[in-house]
Amino acid sequence: MTTSARLDSARVYSGRVLNLDVDRVRFPDGSVGELEIIRHPGASAVIPFASDPAGDDPQVLLIRQFRYAAERVIYEIPAGRLEPGETPLACAIRELREETGCTAARVEPLITIYTTPGFTDEKIHLFMATGLTIGASSPEADEFIEVVTIPLSEVLLMIERGEIVDGKTLIAILYAAGYRAGR
Amino acid sequence: MTTSARLDSARVYSGRVLNLDVDRVRFPDGSVGELEIIRHPGASAVIPFASDPAGDDPQVLLIRQFRYAAERVIYEIPAGRLEPGETPLACAIRELREETGCTAARVEPLITIYTTPGFTDEKIHLFMATGLTIGASSPEADEFIEVVTIPLSEVLLMIERGEIVDGKTLIAILYAAGYRAGR
Repeated sequence: MTTSARLDSARVYSGRVLNLDVDRVRFPDGSVGELEIIRHPGASAVIPFASDPAGDDPQVLLIRQFRYAAERVIYEIPAGRLEPGETPLACAIRELREETGCTAARVEPLITIYTTPGFTDEKIHLFMATGLTIGASSPEADEFIEVVTIPLSEVLLMIERGEIVDGKTLIAILYAAGYRAGR
Repeated sequence: MTTSARLDSARVYSGRVLNLDVDRVRFPDGSVGELEIIRHPGASAVIPFASDPAGDDPQVLLIRQFRYAAERVIYEIPAGRLEPGETPLACAIRELREETGCTAARVEPLITIYTTPGFTDEKIHLFMATGLTIGASSPEADEFIEVVTIPLSEVLLMIERGEIVDGKTLIAILYAAGYRAGR
């Protein structure tokens, strides 16, 4: 399968969080067109298990956060953007500490995802944290979050009831549930 | 938990696919700040089973597509934006037909997700299609796609190997695999 080639790129918006480019692109059939792309530095997210993930119905830490874009409070796993020069693992450890106050004995990579590749290059590196030590959280000034601890069996029921709607969070939970099942 | 309130909204970019707003917002602590938001009409996506999903290792249809933002060919389930006035179910049926040429005896809702609620209101309604009748696909002019049929067991191995990276696709597969397992 052939690919598309960048001919030109123009930054049409540069903001606090988002940068929007319009690229002129040659498509696989030779035609030329424009594509709008949100450029993103990438992010890490981590599903924290508060008890042995191989044990009977382990406890999962989630954060409840009002998300303006979604116009509702949603459940998410701790996550945030990579800082310049930061590795995905270091970012996952930092976000876990900032958002939940926890440190972890083990932080393992699960999978890396594109959130919505039709219009952004945003990649999220997903991790699983175990062996937690609880501390005090230190969220950023514009974060208004609450940490909750819920058994995995209940988290899976919440997914079925449509109560967990965040993409990265759904993937981490469903993947870790399968991982735990030894798939 | 309190919420954030919109004070003002300015459209800073209006494009072919993306619209970018900067909203002035009052946060839960009473402070005022700006948030950048990509406004999106919403989308549907559908995981098509080419054989009985309750059967032994059912076949899944996936599309391979070069995604410019990801700079690679990625596997995805059929998906696309809602047209004005279109229901999520009608959109799922239309995208399934356009991208794979298939019609389905049954199209059932699975779950609705926010792809990346930190900076966009994009919602994707996920469906599962069964009882497929194969026809000729009719992709849009800027879509360069190939339809492949893969056993679910192999799709799950591809996820473990990091070969499936699209968020909505991961959720639909992992959810449908659990659904099939009767969770």
